[in-house]
Amino acid sequence: MPNLTPRQKLWVDQDGKIVMSDYRVRLLALVAETGSLARAASAMKLSYRRAWGKIKEIEANLGVPLVQSEVGGPGGGHTVLTPEAEAIVLAYLRFQSRMAEDLRAIFNEEFASILPRTPV
Amino acid sequence: MPNLTPRQKLWVDQDGKIVMSDYRVRLLALVAETGSLARAASAMKLSYRRAWGKIKEIEANLGVPLVQSEVGGPGGGHTVLTPEAEAIVLAYLRFQSRMAEDLRAIFNEEFASILPRTPV
Repeated sequence: MPNLTPRQKLWVDQDGKIVMSDYRVRLLALVAETGSLARAASAMKLSYRRAWGKIKEIEANLGVPLVQSEVGGPGGGHTVLTPEAEAIVLAYLRFQSRMAEDLRAIFNEEFASILPRTPV
Repeated sequence: MPNLTPRQKLWVDQDGKIVMSDYRVRLLALVAETGSLARAASAMKLSYRRAWGKIKEIEANLGVPLVQSEVGGPGGGHTVLTPEAEAIVLAYLRFQSRMAEDLRAIFNEEFASILPRTPV
């Protein structure tokens, strides 16, 4: 049994609705990085409309504002995350990273006797 | 943001094919518990044919025999796990249990400052 690889998918529910996931948090992180929902959408190969709809859906489910838009000025509009969204993105990315580390470590420990030579 | 609940889905790939998952390992664990593929299939609301096909698919992907059937005798046939399958089931159940503990602990730690009152 060579090449066994543990996998995980993570998400966060609120009252049965998905409010955070790798995909959703990546969209928010890209808004923070690029300062633009249009550029974040483009980086994820989403339409602007679809990206905007996804953010509004998460805001509605969470009950928390996630983005602030600043209109006009040289270079056009600008979108930034709210402080609440910044805190959520950072917490989720740490959660995701630690879970990925644990996935490999725990899998290797539990399957060591079965797969003595399989590094993961 | 009350009631946030972290979720995860776990599985194990080999060369891009799923060879273990909560569902697949539950089927094997039920064979071990009931001594019968028919009863294991019934407990999971699967047809016998479908349960058998799933086990043969995992065996083909892993390259390891998972079940042994003993035909006849009073009470009819009997299906048991091979020693390899028993080791896989036990390792996966420990992996799954430890990952579930970590999911809650890590989520609570990383989201504590955002959700000071949310026990998960």
